[in-house]
Amino acid sequence: MTEFELIQTYFTRPKPGLSRATLGVGDDCALLHPPRPGMQWAVSCDMLVAGQHFFEDVSPQLLGHKALAVNLSDLAACGAKPVAFFLALALPQADETFLQGFSTGLHALADEFECELLGGDTTRGPLNICITVMGEVPQGQALLRSGAQVGDDVYVSGKLGDASLALAALRGEPGVQLGAQALAELRPALEQPQPRVALGRALRGLVHSAIDISDGLLSDLGHLLQRSQVGARVQLDALPCSTHLRQQAPQLQQRCLLAGGDDYELLFTAAPSQAAAVQAAAHQTGVPVTRIGCAQAGLQIWDLQNQIPSTNFCGFDHFAG
Amino acid sequence: MTEFELIQTYFTRPKPGLSRATLGVGDDCALLHPPRPGMQWAVSCDMLVAGQHFFEDVSPQLLGHKALAVNLSDLAACGAKPVAFFLALALPQADETFLQGFSTGLHALADEFECELLGGDTTRGPLNICITVMGEVPQGQALLRSGAQVGDDVYVSGKLGDASLALAALRGEPGVQLGAQALAELRPALEQPQPRVALGRALRGLVHSAIDISDGLLSDLGHLLQRSQVGARVQLDALPCSTHLRQQAPQLQQRCLLAGGDDYELLFTAAPSQAAAVQAAAHQTGVPVTRIGCAQAGLQIWDLQNQIPSTNFCGFDHFAG
Repeated sequence: MTEFELIQTYFTRPKPGLSRATLGVGDDCALLHPPRPGMQWAVSCDMLVAGQHFFEDVSPQLLGHKALAVNLSDLAACGAKPVAFFLALALPQADETFLQGFSTGLHALADEFECELLGGDTTRGPLNICITVMGEVPQGQALLRSGAQVGDDVYVSGKLGDASLALAALRGEPGVQLGAQALAELRPALEQPQPRVALGRALRGLVHSAIDISDGLLSDLGHLLQRSQVGARVQLDALPCSTHLRQQAPQLQQRCLLAGGDDYELLFTAAPSQAAAVQAAAHQTGVPVTRIGCAQAGLQIWDLQNQIPSTNFCGFDHFAG
Repeated sequence: MTEFELIQTYFTRPKPGLSRATLGVGDDCALLHPPRPGMQWAVSCDMLVAGQHFFEDVSPQLLGHKALAVNLSDLAACGAKPVAFFLALALPQADETFLQGFSTGLHALADEFECELLGGDTTRGPLNICITVMGEVPQGQALLRSGAQVGDDVYVSGKLGDASLALAALRGEPGVQLGAQALAELRPALEQPQPRVALGRALRGLVHSAIDISDGLLSDLGHLLQRSQVGARVQLDALPCSTHLRQQAPQLQQRCLLAGGDDYELLFTAAPSQAAAVQAAAHQTGVPVTRIGCAQAGLQIWDLQNQIPSTNFCGFDHFAG
């Protein structure tokens, strides 16, 4: 199979009725219509590498889903509506089983969010997936990391730590207490994250700051607070946590909640006066939202009784250590 | 060095006076101003893999140049003006010598074309560079692959084959006749291609079709002709060729001219009535342009006397064979 047959077979699709492009896959560039009046583009780019971000033997369909999902999560964190994406793919060989599964998972999620594949690149090389995604957001209304204020409530969406608990189990880490059924229930958190696009859009105008949690709560909270030049007090026992994670030893539980990666939930801050509106947005979009603390002068993590040194935990960093 | 220190040190720069972004590196997404009135975005994405697209031991500065240059070449082929780019980078380790050189070469070319780095991703993994570039072009004026017409003149910019001759020499292929001085003169064609952005923009309104030659003349001409549903007759001895390449054995010479990769020259077709205007655009932008044949019903390659079966040559395909 040649590179062009590969693109034609797996990555070229009928142009949707409401395409945002005058030209898509197949020329030197894609040509995009300007954003609608009053809108601006939000653009993000994520690269996934075999062995770093996923197991080599992961289901190709789930991998196709996840590769786009992590990018859509960045749009969600900005409150942007997905529009289009570009896919660059390095493959050890043109394995048709892989390509069939990968493209199926990718296109299914793209269709769900009406996000059109407009171009990209394929090449031979160690498995690597790079997606650049474009969304649109009304000018001046994007959610940013930088707006948190002292006194803000701090919230997260969904539950934290299930993805990293599943990863720990799949890696066979000692001390993980998880039966086969429980692991089956947790794997989708790791392998099929649901980008919180609807929630992000519903939070526009309500929140002071937002970020998506990809490298662990403490790490991404740190980024948000650093950008905002504030601190926060987070109540450990307030963190939304599955029953399976609650049953783990305290140390593992804390690590998954505070420093686990791959949550792809939204972390955001809002004035206390917006509490009802935030819960209404959560209700409207079907994504639970939990208040986990408040923004203050310095970063503190508290369990029921005691402050825990936040240096006990660090999120995932590809180059640290 | 952490991932954030790495981004801060090598890939975060002062915002230029005329930034096209309201928000660049450092949030979940970059936020772009809409294109100027009457303009549309041209977007392209290329991935470069160590061992496939460059030698592992290539100068990092040249690699930084080339990674962006091949993307700018796609914009050139559309007649678009570079605006911004996103860089995803997988690195085996955070090697500061590499990063210093790579970012220097990258930023130098970006500055030359006023193309702003607005975001991206860094991760650990086998060396892989993925760039998504955005340019702007007046609506409806982009150069496309699809407009060639029977009777058009076929042109290429610059010279062909020097990059692949340099590659053959560096690989130590038998039969390459090239001294050290000659190789030194040819290496920039391979390692430091000059994207033909100014020429592409000057050709807007003059040409019927265009593509950049990255996989070899015959391969990319084939793409253009297939898109345009025409053929072409190309005169082999008309192909612009360096003295060094002219001194090689005929078979090597033909292979480099017709099927060599990495030329990053523009291939385009125009009505014969535009011949003077095309040469004026070439003169104005300082890039020589050569008529190499004409569009007709079927594809033919001719040397001085004879038609050569075009199946004797095929361009580079990452997955063929």
